Amino acid sequence: MNGQNSIDICLSPALYSYYAGRQDVCVVVVDVFRATTCMCAGLHAGVAGIVPVAGVAEAERMKAAGRIVAAERNVAKCGFADLGNSPFDYMQAWLRGQEVVMTTTNGTQAIALAREAGRLVAGAFVNLSRVVAFCEACGTDVQVLCAGWNNRVNVEDTLFAGALAGRLLQSGRFAATSDAVRMALSLWEAGKADLKTFLQGTEHLQRLLAHGLERDVDYCLTLDAAPALPVYDKPSGTLRAFQG
Amino acid sequence: MNGQNSIDICLSPALYSYYAGRQDVCVVVVDVFRATTCMCAGLHAGVAGIVPVAGVAEAERMKAAGRIVAAERNVAKCGFADLGNSPFDYMQAWLRGQEVVMTTTNGTQAIALAREAGRLVAGAFVNLSRVVAFCEACGTDVQVLCAGWNNRVNVEDTLFAGALAGRLLQSGRFAATSDAVRMALSLWEAGKADLKTFLQGTEHLQRLLAHGLERDVDYCLTLDAAPALPVYDKPSGTLRAFQG
Repeated sequence: MNGQNSIDICLSPALYSYYAGRQDVCVVVVDVFRATTCMCAGLHAGVAGIVPVAGVAEAERMKAAGRIVAAERNVAKCGFADLGNSPFDYMQAWLRGQEVVMTTTNGTQAIALAREAGRLVAGAFVNLSRVVAFCEACGTDVQVLCAGWNNRVNVEDTLFAGALAGRLLQSGRFAATSDAVRMALSLWEAGKADLKTFLQGTEHLQRLLAHGLERDVDYCLTLDAAPALPVYDKPSGTLRAFQG
Repeated sequence: MNGQNSIDICLSPALYSYYAGRQDVCVVVVDVFRATTCMCAGLHAGVAGIVPVAGVAEAERMKAAGRIVAAERNVAKCGFADLGNSPFDYMQAWLRGQEVVMTTTNGTQAIALAREAGRLVAGAFVNLSRVVAFCEACGTDVQVLCAGWNNRVNVEDTLFAGALAGRLLQSGRFAATSDAVRMALSLWEAGKADLKTFLQGTEHLQRLLAHGLERDVDYCLTLDAAPALPVYDKPSGTLRAFQG
């Protein structure tokens, strides 16, 4: 395994402490539906930075202080917020060059959990190739953290983790010994030919379709549709587009 | 969904609180390698009862008090114990009619976690058909609790969960809406044709093979090899063979 880094996958934030690696690990947080997809969509469309906050109260305080705020709980936009959790919200022209404060049901909690990692980036199907390239260049172990849904595992984040692991293992620079990686790779093999069909009947897809959000779903499942790489800057607590 | 019960799967003890259902749920604890396989093997061979305890210290006290004790940590038998965690240990003639106190790295912890459930049974590949029949007769929701490894998910317990879910869903009496069930079913579809080959390279299989335990592995993967159903009796804290 000379010269190889490891990749591991944590299927739920509640399992993070059992998977957390060394300080210099690169953590890829994924919340396909829809937080990390929104981050990619926003930064790709020219948003200057995204400030993830875990709590609604904190987001509300920042709104009162004059910040632009995106806030969602259980699929719906919070009343006080400027934006909800649709990637299309983040593509509006008036947001270019602005910073957006963001809180979502699962994704921003996962980021809060992993923000002490050596490197923290946001991954989704819409920026998969950028994440692959970043991990390959990183020179450290990689840890995928699936945001899940209220600490339950979900299919879409696990699929992304499998897709990423598959690409990294292919390169020969990574090795995996973890059962979670085996499980995610197997799921990706089963689903990769048609993600949307494979996801029929899954919990969060049902929830989004019930809210009339099929357009969001289609966007979230489009590979490399928003090739920006959100990287977390610790001092400022802000995700910004990686320039490289 | 009239007349249907639900089946759900918890991939790690650390996720149990996010999956735990109503009080009258039937929890199936699984630790394929090897705790729940041992329980089936023992009860099938005539052991009268198995008393799971979570801690080594408690097991040691019970040994000092004259009980027959099985104790294992990280694959190896504890020095003070009569038995380790091999299913063949439990088949010895001198154990017939005896009760065995048992503690293992993961399986007995999972049982401790779920012992307040309405019904608690131990499942493994060696008693799969008995578990299916019991769940079908139960009339309650079913919750599979995978013991995993130190709270990390593993392939073999997830495979069992997928096999059980597949059989229960086939019957038409059960429905599943959980993503965890989708993931386990997909894994089972990928692995069912040849479990041992599918498990090559997985964490716990490697660990067992490194200890020369291939015979245990083969036994643990044999469907219905020990068709006893360990049911947890709350007042006595003992797993006994279900008569029915």
